[in-house]
Amino acid sequence: MTATRIGVLGGGQLGQMLGLSAIPLGIECVFYDPSPDAPARVAGRHICAAWSDREALAEFAASVERITFEFENVPAASLAYLAERKPVYPGVRSLELTCDRIREKEFLRDAGVPVQPFAGVTVRSELELALATVGTHGVLKTRTLGYDGKGQRVVHSADELALATGGTHGVLKTRTLGYDGKGQRVVHSADELARAWDSLDHAPCIYEAFVPFDREVSVVATRAANGEIAAYPVVENLHTQGILFRSIAPARVSDGLARAAEGHARRVLEALGHVGTLALEMFVADGTLVANEVAPRVHNSGHWTIHGARTSQFENHMRAVAGLPLGDTGMAELSAMVNFVGGLPPREEILAIPGASLQLYGKSPRPGRKVAHVGIVAPTRAELDERLARVEGVARRVNRLAPAPSEASRTA
Amino acid sequence: MTATRIGVLGGGQLGQMLGLSAIPLGIECVFYDPSPDAPARVAGRHICAAWSDREALAEFAASVERITFEFENVPAASLAYLAERKPVYPGVRSLELTCDRIREKEFLRDAGVPVQPFAGVTVRSELELALATVGTHGVLKTRTLGYDGKGQRVVHSADELALATGGTHGVLKTRTLGYDGKGQRVVHSADELARAWDSLDHAPCIYEAFVPFDREVSVVATRAANGEIAAYPVVENLHTQGILFRSIAPARVSDGLARAAEGHARRVLEALGHVGTLALEMFVADGTLVANEVAPRVHNSGHWTIHGARTSQFENHMRAVAGLPLGDTGMAELSAMVNFVGGLPPREEILAIPGASLQLYGKSPRPGRKVAHVGIVAPTRAELDERLARVEGVARRVNRLAPAPSEASRTA
Repeated sequence: MTATRIGVLGGGQLGQMLGLSAIPLGIECVFYDPSPDAPARVAGRHICAAWSDREALAEFAASVERITFEFENVPAASLAYLAERKPVYPGVRSLELTCDRIREKEFLRDAGVPVQPFAGVTVRSELELALATVGTHGVLKTRTLGYDGKGQRVVHSADELALATGGTHGVLKTRTLGYDGKGQRVVHSADELARAWDSLDHAPCIYEAFVPFDREVSVVATRAANGEIAAYPVVENLHTQGILFRSIAPARVSDGLARAAEGHARRVLEALGHVGTLALEMFVADGTLVANEVAPRVHNSGHWTIHGARTSQFENHMRAVAGLPLGDTGMAELSAMVNFVGGLPPREEILAIPGASLQLYGKSPRPGRKVAHVGIVAPTRAELDERLARVEGVARRVNRLAPAPSEASRTA
Repeated sequence: MTATRIGVLGGGQLGQMLGLSAIPLGIECVFYDPSPDAPARVAGRHICAAWSDREALAEFAASVERITFEFENVPAASLAYLAERKPVYPGVRSLELTCDRIREKEFLRDAGVPVQPFAGVTVRSELELALATVGTHGVLKTRTLGYDGKGQRVVHSADELALATGGTHGVLKTRTLGYDGKGQRVVHSADELARAWDSLDHAPCIYEAFVPFDREVSVVATRAANGEIAAYPVVENLHTQGILFRSIAPARVSDGLARAAEGHARRVLEALGHVGTLALEMFVADGTLVANEVAPRVHNSGHWTIHGARTSQFENHMRAVAGLPLGDTGMAELSAMVNFVGGLPPREEILAIPGASLQLYGKSPRPGRKVAHVGIVAPTRAELDERLARVEGVARRVNRLAPAPSEASRTA
């Protein structure tokens, strides 16, 4: 049976884009979000209530046939309450996975996806074992992941990498909710690890080896309930201060590496029994792939698919949740995406750039807040580079990232 | 200055698609439509009131910066009332043009766009002059156009053409609101013209020469207030019983003919000073173009642009009305569109066809009512033909057109 009424937990821009993709499919979305100005409210009914409001949750569940989410940090009790009432896709396994960075890494390793050395740090005595396992170049992070990959990255640009590789170093992150460089610390020596853990208030952490990567890539893919998988071309990503700045599709990597990356994403989808869209972020280091993390939902590195792929990641997610056949993930042209963070893109300037399309989220800008993205298509690499450079130039001018953490806590 | 709040007169599927394209541009739409279940209500605020409701019209005008329409039969008094309050695009000239088929033909002729011979029939004594001008093969139509080109076509398929060309013939149409073969009559002989006019209750009519065309084409194009024009590739259309059945883009015509067709559309846009999207429908007869009619708005033969062009006709219309730069009208692949009329497309069956995308309007089906379209893209003509044949097969199975008028009044 296919569904026509789908509930979405969270009403941010991901919800908005899910809702906009659902309308032409004959799917009505109901969004659950505590914020009265949730961006998704323009694309369906909005139930504005606290995550703990049992009455509102029951009303939400009663008004839909299936439930999905654009925000994976829904309190476990609320989710369990909903799951008793209506099927939740992609499924509990996918949600649980990303609640804990250690569980996530273990899952990836068990699924046959390469990961860097890592170790848990919950008590002080584990610090020594962690150093022995991981080495002195590492990243300490809180175990619980923040929204949209925030608080999870070590190095975000070539400049930062150069800075970071100046000595033995790494990042120490807390195990609880991280945010944009908060809740994670770069570690360059044995001494620093203990101090980093102190500065993270002894939260449950994961200590990961620092990966001196050449490139960050991701694969966004959708799995249907019948096991069918539709994978998008591998994308290359560039982060600035922990926030995705731009993606290029397809990534400038070898065919072999692209095939390997897609294979890893397929293994993750299958091992989870995931139903819906998912993103697997990976580093390319010395020509091999190392998995960084999984986002069990539509993902910022798949936003280019709205204007650049034959079916968007949002539509394919809704198709999967509704029980409809998946759409073509191919692209007829080259594509890219640039995020606008903390500052709105000037509409006239952007739309005057050939091949550029605007996606405004209806959010008022404040530093560090994603408020829009621009999709770019072009028939040739040279044209894509030229157009992308123009859009990036505008973004660098208007973007206002969150105030950088202190030098010590900067995520390299 | 660019606008962010735009009022749309009419809330049908054209309004819905305008509204969906407006959201990512940061434009809020307000729809004015007397129907409580107007399809556009999912894409913006809906003011549900009668066309004559001055209070509601004033509220509508006050809530927006500019006004446009998706429905050109707004009562003249209501439009005048609104135009005193806010700028209306594309403008009064464009609206007036299509209120009267004779004025439209005269305008096209004066703009240098070829039209077939035509004559007005308002009193009985004009019948003879009309026959002398046009001949005995003709079409009598009411002068006032109906929504979406309904009631305006003579021949809709090769079969109908064969039937129609079996003798001297034509179609007589009333000059008032026509609908799907209603309000128009095919005329095959001098006697028949008088009888056709009788059967149309002596409404003010236009009598046009029958054009034995090989192909129907249209050009959808958008003009900005600064005079910039963005034209989509010329499209070929097939009608069934007066309703568009499918479009193929680009049309299978020579480059010279395509250039000529685009030139005609540009002349129309410029002569009108039109701001927004417009469609010019033309016949191809003996390798030359004859204009059929102008739709002063987004048009069904441009629906393929949602999935097939880099910028949709809807987005370009909103860009033009808002004062934003126009987007790229090019296409990276071949494209087509099939209308679903009177019957909903089976979602699973359609979405399993490669390159097929659904656009459901949220309308309950009844005979003759457009409820959805399917966009198709393909990298090669052979693949497009194969995919299109599959979608057309489904549409022919589920479509339920309006009950055909009696044989005498069938639009050939």
